[in-house]
Amino acid sequence: MEHRIGLIGCGTVGQGLLGILHEKRDFLRDAFGFEAKVVAITDKIKGTLIAPEGIDIPAVLAVLGQGKGLADYPKATPAQVEPLDPLDMIERTDAGIIAEMTYTDIKTGEPATSYIKKALRLGKHVVTSNKGPAALHYRDIQDLARKNGLQFRFEGAVMSGTPVFHLVECGLAGNTIREVKGILNGTTNFILTRMETEGMDYGPALALAKKLGYAEADPTADVEGFDALAKIVILSNVLLGGALKTTDVPCKGISAITKADVEAAKAAGFRYKLIAHAKNEGGIVTANVSPQKLPLADPLAGVMGAHNALSLETDLMGNVTIQGAGAGKVETGFAILSDILAIHRC
Amino acid sequence: MEHRIGLIGCGTVGQGLLGILHEKRDFLRDAFGFEAKVVAITDKIKGTLIAPEGIDIPAVLAVLGQGKGLADYPKATPAQVEPLDPLDMIERTDAGIIAEMTYTDIKTGEPATSYIKKALRLGKHVVTSNKGPAALHYRDIQDLARKNGLQFRFEGAVMSGTPVFHLVECGLAGNTIREVKGILNGTTNFILTRMETEGMDYGPALALAKKLGYAEADPTADVEGFDALAKIVILSNVLLGGALKTTDVPCKGISAITKADVEAAKAAGFRYKLIAHAKNEGGIVTANVSPQKLPLADPLAGVMGAHNALSLETDLMGNVTIQGAGAGKVETGFAILSDILAIHRC
Repeated sequence: MEHRIGLIGCGTVGQGLLGILHEKRDFLRDAFGFEAKVVAITDKIKGTLIAPEGIDIPAVLAVLGQGKGLADYPKATPAQVEPLDPLDMIERTDAGIIAEMTYTDIKTGEPATSYIKKALRLGKHVVTSNKGPAALHYRDIQDLARKNGLQFRFEGAVMSGTPVFHLVECGLAGNTIREVKGILNGTTNFILTRMETEGMDYGPALALAKKLGYAEADPTADVEGFDALAKIVILSNVLLGGALKTTDVPCKGISAITKADVEAAKAAGFRYKLIAHAKNEGGIVTANVSPQKLPLADPLAGVMGAHNALSLETDLMGNVTIQGAGAGKVETGFAILSDILAIHRC
Repeated sequence: MEHRIGLIGCGTVGQGLLGILHEKRDFLRDAFGFEAKVVAITDKIKGTLIAPEGIDIPAVLAVLGQGKGLADYPKATPAQVEPLDPLDMIERTDAGIIAEMTYTDIKTGEPATSYIKKALRLGKHVVTSNKGPAALHYRDIQDLARKNGLQFRFEGAVMSGTPVFHLVECGLAGNTIREVKGILNGTTNFILTRMETEGMDYGPALALAKKLGYAEADPTADVEGFDALAKIVILSNVLLGGALKTTDVPCKGISAITKADVEAAKAAGFRYKLIAHAKNEGGIVTANVSPQKLPLADPLAGVMGAHNALSLETDLMGNVTIQGAGAGKVETGFAILSDILAIHRC
């Protein structure tokens, strides 16, 4: 079956997705009967390209790889590369699936939430790697999708492509999840790992994380726990049936942790981790984010470097823990593909 | 949708499954539109019960809980509890799904393989927790299932209900798996854990495992690695596209590991684990089972006690590791349910 796909946002993740769709096209067709035709791309910086006949992926990646915009795509007519707001692109394209991959605004979830709602109202499935809409407007969007018989999927919003939502939906279906506990931010886990294994203090470890590309120039969202906070709100509302807002969740980051704290914990057989935690007790869902000293036997204590992991407490299967990448161009691009494949399966 | 289910084998796992089907019936109906009617049970020791109108699960569990046989099920006519060979039960029942839960014979895979093939020939899906058929006859059975448009599923054969096959099928779909490495036997992991954490020698640790129910009276299959061997053959053939026989796989257990070995490894920053390993290199699939000294940063090094875990090396998602229970009445019963739910979803 052929799926017509429109991309909003064509930075790292979007280009990662395009690369996978192209390189894996034979495999995906043979293994799953899946074929993708990318029919529209719009990006704040790179412009717009609408091509119902299907975009030549190597050609568009070559143009973008040279630092050019979509207007330089060689096969387009001027009308096909006319600048368009994503809201207009959604209206104009015949794509059945919109892949939303713009940057997260964790205060408003906009403009992504507006894009997603418009796509759903126009009968298009939506997949996204953006944390904002799922963290701030999950119920609204999910209700809208359900009402229209469509899917709203966001595997890439938590732990990138490490398949948390798919795991619960397929492998653990039938379980009630009581509690989740995770290492959901790779930057802070990298910093804490280096503080312990190299005996570094917080400042130099953060500087190293920036140098190696694990932390952004302004690391606040990571080190103060806000990124993990958005993710635990999503997990609380999707997996535990909560209705939490980001302002409901106490949040403490790692910037006050010192080398001496880490060493004292280690000497006592513990390891500091930034833990995002949520539980459902008798229908009351609560969550928090804070640095915690874990005993070394905890399944999360062994998660080192920039890896992420999530432990789920279930009624039938007890504790199940999944660990994998928490970021990455290919990984997040794959997260989008995995959601598109889920739509394909239904 | 209502599914008619026939059980072959009604020991621990079968009774676990019945309990879950009954206790979760409202949840399964509301969440997934899934309804199960158990219409036949046959067990070597407990006899046979065929009831197309549906078996009263609490009533049958009460009878079995008292140590009685299926002939004592209060609502049955004599014809319904006439002793039947499972091959005859498969012919007689109108179940659309057969849940095969007899003991594993790892030399022949029989009689389970004959039951499974007969069920598939008669148009019934098959789910099983038995390692034998998948380890010895996977291609044959899978081809037969495919030819008849049916499913053959065996989530419970490896890591009980910890969803390895579901993970690959849903969350990781689109990836090529290059290599898997796992702790697939809970008994040996329990013994190695106690040898390290309590400073026990192999003999006393094995004795403790027997006392606590983690090891059988004859522990050979576990401690010599044969259980892990059957599981890595299944993983090789299902996930890596191999065609391995159990005799192709070098296998060494843990019975020669001493307290001194474990302590020397620990002092050097390593931990002994019984590792089942398989890889696909250029289309050549190889596997082995052996005790290995893992660095503590390895995702498998932190898997303690009777837990199991599997690390998958994928082309798009890098390393993904899943950890959970490797045995248990409820867990393995749930594995069967998870396979039935997968049939329901299709």
